[in-house]
Amino acid sequence: MNQEKISPAIPNRGDDVIAGRNAVQEALRSGRPIDCIYSARGDRSGSISVILAKAREKGIPIKETDPRKLDALCGNANHQGVIAIASVHSYASVEDIFRRAEERQEPLFLIVADEIEDPHNLGAILRTAECAGAHGVVIPRRRAAGLTYAVGKASAGAVEYIPVARVPNIPAFLDDLKKRGVWIYTADMDGQLWYSVDYSGPAALVVGSEGKGVSRLVREKSDFIVSIPLEGQINSLNASVACGILCYEIARQRREKSSK
Amino acid sequence: MNQEKISPAIPNRGDDVIAGRNAVQEALRSGRPIDCIYSARGDRSGSISVILAKAREKGIPIKETDPRKLDALCGNANHQGVIAIASVHSYASVEDIFRRAEERQEPLFLIVADEIEDPHNLGAILRTAECAGAHGVVIPRRRAAGLTYAVGKASAGAVEYIPVARVPNIPAFLDDLKKRGVWIYTADMDGQLWYSVDYSGPAALVVGSEGKGVSRLVREKSDFIVSIPLEGQINSLNASVACGILCYEIARQRREKSSK
Repeated sequence: MNQEKISPAIPNRGDDVIAGRNAVQEALRSGRPIDCIYSARGDRSGSISVILAKAREKGIPIKETDPRKLDALCGNANHQGVIAIASVHSYASVEDIFRRAEERQEPLFLIVADEIEDPHNLGAILRTAECAGAHGVVIPRRRAAGLTYAVGKASAGAVEYIPVARVPNIPAFLDDLKKRGVWIYTADMDGQLWYSVDYSGPAALVVGSEGKGVSRLVREKSDFIVSIPLEGQINSLNASVACGILCYEIARQRREKSSK
Repeated sequence: MNQEKISPAIPNRGDDVIAGRNAVQEALRSGRPIDCIYSARGDRSGSISVILAKAREKGIPIKETDPRKLDALCGNANHQGVIAIASVHSYASVEDIFRRAEERQEPLFLIVADEIEDPHNLGAILRTAECAGAHGVVIPRRRAAGLTYAVGKASAGAVEYIPVARVPNIPAFLDDLKKRGVWIYTADMDGQLWYSVDYSGPAALVVGSEGKGVSRLVREKSDFIVSIPLEGQINSLNASVACGILCYEIARQRREKSSK
């Protein structure tokens, strides 16, 4: 199981913290959407092993952590070594996103948000993607913000309308997309001018975090690296602003083409 | 003098609150950039009338308010009826912005941020404008966030690089711009598609707040209303995302033109 820092992904915690073994088991049983489960590192006592097995079965990420971080997460409630973070919305599947494009008879328009840890950025990307008419957003299962309360809030409600799917591994997912005839456009430095490539076919737009960008592996899997030149002194655009510029370039080209 | 709500414009207050008559007088004397002055409503005792006259002379907005709001602003320090809010950067003049375009031998590219009260939005607009190569940003003197600590922080440092000028009245300023041969492009609903107009001449892009948009008067003064279609259920883009999409459409057209 993966061991991750908690802090960056969970500011503005709302009423989405489910603390304690019975409460978490009940949440799992009810089918309530769960973003992830935090458990005290190494603790397999009582029903914890049952909870973790159930979570694994449902594909819910498990994050083993220091018990003091669990205390902080739930405001020192009696968590008994396990906390579930509820999602504000259920996750979709990748197939749901493909189906949406088919139903609208449009070439696929998918956003891949790679390792966006800041909930405000992920929320803002969901909002922007929804406004631009993307069919869905794919995020990695690990090392990324999920559909938490803070992300829902920052999305200005978009989380209710745009399907968000999680995949275990982004580079492997990009390989799958390529096999299905989808072109991969990755926003990064030292690429082609963002408007100089053709986005009219099935397209996945990959955006990374502001600080780190995308990984070398993601870059290698890409068909196109697209760059938005920075004309000033500041060395990055906000992630959702960059996503908006690229999404609307895709929208512009598709409109231009369909009006011809 | 104008009486305004304080609350929306001043979250995340940093070390930019200067409280008390002597401290405010000293700040005015030293030439330290001041964003605005809050004074207790109707209070003209002691040196307050001198302070307010000096502020007026320097063109610093004065906001008369309830003394309890002054208490809240400075954490109950002894403000003696007057507080100055320092700017994180000096304001530029409109001429500075025109000069910048001339020096770069580029057609003017100006952003007018009309009544943006949320410091995060104004900061994000400054960042976006700086990245896109705009020559400057103009904001109204009243009913808008200024160059406060929170705006500087949200701008990711852009406040150091992009000139920001304040004008008393946006519609009158747009009239001045038109007399100087600048075309006014206003982002609003029910306009032309954002990419269907020609931005190659001297251009001022007017963006309003997310909730209210721009005023009727601003709309009437505009040469073009430009719209970014929303393809989903959410009824607005984030102000800085909309600004980014439009700024980079301007950049795209100008690049395309200069490469021909």
